[in-house]
Amino acid sequence: MLIDLRSDTVTRPTPGMKEAMFSAPVGDDVFGEDPTVNALEEKIAKLFGMEAALFCPSGTMTNQIAIRLHTQIQTEVICHKYSHIYLYEGGGIMANSLASVKLLDGDLGKITASQIAESINPDDVHAPETTMVSLENTMNKGGGSIYSLEEIKPIHQLCQKKGLKLHLDGARLFNALVESGESPSEWGAHFDTISICLSKGLGCPVGSVLLGSKADIKRARKVRKVFGGGMRQAGFLAAAGIYALDHHVDRLKEDHSRARSLGEMLGELPFVSEIFPVATNIVIARLEGITPEVFMQKLSDQNIKSVKFGKDLVRFVTHLDFGDEHLEEFGKRIKNI
Amino acid sequence: MLIDLRSDTVTRPTPGMKEAMFSAPVGDDVFGEDPTVNALEEKIAKLFGMEAALFCPSGTMTNQIAIRLHTQIQTEVICHKYSHIYLYEGGGIMANSLASVKLLDGDLGKITASQIAESINPDDVHAPETTMVSLENTMNKGGGSIYSLEEIKPIHQLCQKKGLKLHLDGARLFNALVESGESPSEWGAHFDTISICLSKGLGCPVGSVLLGSKADIKRARKVRKVFGGGMRQAGFLAAAGIYALDHHVDRLKEDHSRARSLGEMLGELPFVSEIFPVATNIVIARLEGITPEVFMQKLSDQNIKSVKFGKDLVRFVTHLDFGDEHLEEFGKRIKNI
Amino acid sequence: MLIDLRSDTVTRPTPGMKEAMFSAPVGDDVFGEDPTVNALEEKIAKLFGMEAALFCPSGTMTNQIAIRLHTQIQTEVICHKYSHIYLYEGGGIMANSLASVKLLDGDLGKITASQIAESINPDDVHAPETTMVSLENTMNKGGGSIYSLEEIKPIHQLCQKKGLKLHLDGARLFNALVESGESPSEWGAHFDTISICLSKGLGCPVGSVLLGSKADIKRARKVRKVFGGGMRQAGFLAAAGIYALDHHVDRLKEDHSRARSLGEMLGELPFVSEIFPVATNIVIARLEGITPEVFMQKLSDQNIKSVKFGKDLVRFVTHLDFGDEHLEEFGKRIKNI
Amino acid sequence: MLIDLRSDTVTRPTPGMKEAMFSAPVGDDVFGEDPTVNALEEKIAKLFGMEAALFCPSGTMTNQIAIRLHTQIQTEVICHKYSHIYLYEGGGIMANSLASVKLLDGDLGKITASQIAESINPDDVHAPETTMVSLENTMNKGGGSIYSLEEIKPIHQLCQKKGLKLHLDGARLFNALVESGESPSEWGAHFDTISICLSKGLGCPVGSVLLGSKADIKRARKVRKVFGGGMRQAGFLAAAGIYALDHHVDRLKEDHSRARSLGEMLGELPFVSEIFPVATNIVIARLEGITPEVFMQKLSDQNIKSVKFGKDLVRFVTHLDFGDEHLEEFGKRIKNI
Repeated sequence: MLIDLRSDTVTRPTPGMKEAMFSAPVGDDVFGEDPTVNALEEKIAKLFGMEAALFCPSGTMTNQIAIRLHTQIQTEVICHKYSHIYLYEGGGIMANSLASVKLLDGDLGKITASQIAESINPDDVHAPETTMVSLENTMNKGGGSIYSLEEIKPIHQLCQKKGLKLHLDGARLFNALVESGESPSEWGAHFDTISICLSKGLGCPVGSVLLGSKADIKRARKVRKVFGGGMRQAGFLAAAGIYALDHHVDRLKEDHSRARSLGEMLGELPFVSEIFPVATNIVIARLEGITPEVFMQKLSDQNIKSVKFGKDLVRFVTHLDFGDEHLEEFGKRIKNI
Repeated sequence: MLIDLRSDTVTRPTPGMKEAMFSAPVGDDVFGEDPTVNALEEKIAKLFGMEAALFCPSGTMTNQIAIRLHTQIQTEVICHKYSHIYLYEGGGIMANSLASVKLLDGDLGKITASQIAESINPDDVHAPETTMVSLENTMNKGGGSIYSLEEIKPIHQLCQKKGLKLHLDGARLFNALVESGESPSEWGAHFDTISICLSKGLGCPVGSVLLGSKADIKRARKVRKVFGGGMRQAGFLAAAGIYALDHHVDRLKEDHSRARSLGEMLGELPFVSEIFPVATNIVIARLEGITPEVFMQKLSDQNIKSVKFGKDLVRFVTHLDFGDEHLEEFGKRIKNI
Repeated sequence: MLIDLRSDTVTRPTPGMKEAMFSAPVGDDVFGEDPTVNALEEKIAKLFGMEAALFCPSGTMTNQIAIRLHTQIQTEVICHKYSHIYLYEGGGIMANSLASVKLLDGDLGKITASQIAESINPDDVHAPETTMVSLENTMNKGGGSIYSLEEIKPIHQLCQKKGLKLHLDGARLFNALVESGESPSEWGAHFDTISICLSKGLGCPVGSVLLGSKADIKRARKVRKVFGGGMRQAGFLAAAGIYALDHHVDRLKEDHSRARSLGEMLGELPFVSEIFPVATNIVIARLEGITPEVFMQKLSDQNIKSVKFGKDLVRFVTHLDFGDEHLEEFGKRIKNI
Repeated sequence: MLIDLRSDTVTRPTPGMKEAMFSAPVGDDVFGEDPTVNALEEKIAKLFGMEAALFCPSGTMTNQIAIRLHTQIQTEVICHKYSHIYLYEGGGIMANSLASVKLLDGDLGKITASQIAESINPDDVHAPETTMVSLENTMNKGGGSIYSLEEIKPIHQLCQKKGLKLHLDGARLFNALVESGESPSEWGAHFDTISICLSKGLGCPVGSVLLGSKADIKRARKVRKVFGGGMRQAGFLAAAGIYALDHHVDRLKEDHSRARSLGEMLGELPFVSEIFPVATNIVIARLEGITPEVFMQKLSDQNIKSVKFGKDLVRFVTHLDFGDEHLEEFGKRIKNI
């Protein structure tokens, strides 16, 4: 039995989700006529209390569209130096939007209002104009760390005061919300745009959703078109999203619980010097006296997959296809290492 | 009964195609592990005798990736002034690749080697460097017109001589091939990259494929990522593509036959002054004494949908969901206009 | 004696202009402290009744900055297909601003309000948004043709109604104004931005000026910086501009008069089939039975320089360094051809 | 008497330099016919043992052109986080070249081969491809710190091994060379491109030069055109450059000597906690118990100008117009603070 902990993107749809996909009515979404896509966009916009939503092929696309909306050529985005938008989207901030980046440091991948305030560029010809702040919640490189709404509020206030747009890369936002108990609509009230991934913890095969104002989502459709993200009968994919919102949100707690157990098991290994605090479904282990490559090979010999996450770090992610039986099995196998 | 002739993109999957989709094995294509996506890419690359292929969410994306591959900032693309890549992809040539365009004119949307030869910019600081020629076959705005291989060969030779890359927007290439009897591999031998749409005449819900060399497709994966086109369990969509290649190619002839009949019917209307030569599945009618808007409203009153295609032009496209019964019904209804 | 008619850019400063340059007070213009640059900017802004001006190294830069001001990624510029901004600025519309172009045709390089009205893109995801119209006066490729204010007014009204920005590439605007008798301030009232070249008919060694609102010129300074156009003690160059505005405007009529004579002389050559109407200082000859290359070689043998301007066209431009003695000599020499 | 220590760009040409400028023969450099521009380009290329050179209006332009040459869309530049190209060129890396940045930290603004080696991105779709390393010598934000050739060699070797292009922002390279005694040609042998500023310590009014291979400089001319940096009779400016190379290089040592004295004077002030090591003509003072704004106001009250260089830093730069009498006067005035 393969135990694949590389990412929560590796899941395959459950029978119930496939049934929903298979039976969904579809139409040509480029004409705005796919009823299931429309239903998903309405459902999730309403959930977050935001005006509109746009279904896209990936979270990279929803983030990159948001960046395009909130920047112009020769402007700057403030984000953590470990942000997904900077590290893992192919340099898209620059390549798609010609915007510069101000990369901040901060514990567990999080940044604060005061850091942001200090990083806004002066009105000077030498510097690009700061127009956007992007946060990530949960924060992947921070070990699935969580921003609380109390941390968000001063950032939101600062952005409003300074005329900056605030985007949330909420690829794993539902993981944060089921832990904190905060509601989607409270979060929706503090951001100009939010990107939600359906194909991570929620278990859909394909897709992410961008949330924003009607005006922003109208412009987002144009950006999606030029990126090549306009799909035709996308309702098959959107149906999975509707199903996931109905059935796969609460169960994220199980992933978190198993992640904590996983972290404890890993922490007992002699060459693991540190486990990042396990806040949600991500476990990051720091190694000592062994390289990630060697450690991952040992795991692979036990049919366990993980990913390198830095020069002495390895990441494990729990998900819908990792149940109690896998956890137990994982515990057995790592004793062989 | 709605008769929707706006585009061949409006089709819904057949039961056989849906069965193929939902029984397909899937995996995470971002990790290169979706077996069905891999199978589609191998199948279509082999069919065209090209080294590699890449599955993407749309034909706009496959075209835009090809343009990125074959240009750099401050270069120029030669194409017909009615090309899809110039007219209908949101200005992507410029917005995605920062490339200029040389727009040629030519009958039925086609251009010739001698026109191209005259349009290559001199080596001069004032002009962007010409690096790419893009053709479209069939040519949508030319009424589904067909390039023959004999027309392609001198263009290919010119491009090789001048060091230009040659791309084919083959969104409807199979429509051309079933008419001409030419083989995919003959076409594959004359282009650096070919874009094939699965969601038009082939009847798939979503997707296009970019064909090219291994090196180009490797780079294409990076461009797809930054555009946000990397999908996870995309095998559900790819399965439809495999099914379509096996079952929906030959039947395109039926669409063409019905398009010719449709053209004849439309040609008899008093305010239709011209029907573009019907070469494949597209019928373009030129109006006289009536605007497209009024004519389309009259059609809409008969539950027939079409699209405006210029200031005195209306387009109709036949497809998988337009059978003999629809053709007959169409004939009856337009007599009421 | 070389007779150089390739362009009005080939002139060298007169003794008076050099004296003005040499004695100008200068400072660091990046700090906004060059008194002569500031004086030029104020002088020309006042002359055109516009709020502000910016001195730049070239007319390509002033045009390209204007395009950046009036577009965003995925928008479109309407201009004549023979516009300098499209043909001779290295593809900068696309390379600098990622904007698309709608290229209109029209006699003598001029376009009309009704053509523009028809060319504005619909609000549709497939098309870039039209945001800008650019005119050129005099029109280089139209043989130095002139727009009258009466032609401009309906274009200006259309742009205001449709929310489009209107830019004037006035590289040779003063040539038009001395002919029409219209005033700079009348022209300033009809455009969002105007680019004026100092190094063509006005005879300065280097420089152009962009005119616009205070807000636009403030943003223009930032664009100039990122293009690398911020210069330090640029007052030496600006001094020439001030001198030219004071001493070299009225004399443009002499260039026009000599151009008309030149046109007549050329028109008598047996292999010249047509001389474009000579409106200002540009003479374009259409050849018959001889290529531009051969004709230009014959001229070169007589120590006369000209430029190829199309596959059967050759251009001659009169200027400050082409006096009556040069005209007379030109007449003699071409009889030897 | 104003003592302006904001930058070495504030200098005005000496009488000798002005004489050289206004007696220079000039021509139209866009046609490649300005003899003085050509002479400068040849002279400096030869000095550095490089194939070709290009005169540009600013150092921002020469750097930005180099970045364009060595990157493509979706690639990445490695540089120090305090580099001029990242901090002070308007976000041009992204805005002009759509390239990402990897920002390294390091003492006195310098980076090492081993740091660079660790920062090269893996060949993975998620990351932009690393194609370029940019160094700055002297390093402005490092207090005018100097790289030795011994530090450069392993970086050069790494770049060659990894196929990376190596650029030197040598805005103040001559300041480094007069201190180290290393020769221009030794430096020229280790870089693909070098940018040299003429309007800083060398005392010219306007201009920088980009050095590189013939092929690179040919492409650089095209980039300069699209940025709007092609000037006409630029020989007046180039003449100053020739003069400066002949007369103003050795005297940079005087600036350095005065800078060291200046640093000592400043170091005695009670609220100055640290003076960065004074390697060349830049003095950076760290403040304690006083803000830069207040300190600079006190200086300004004494008619001394400086610039803020960080939240507790103030910068002073010595130059051609700051002689012994200014130094002595400076010493007197700061005692009044």
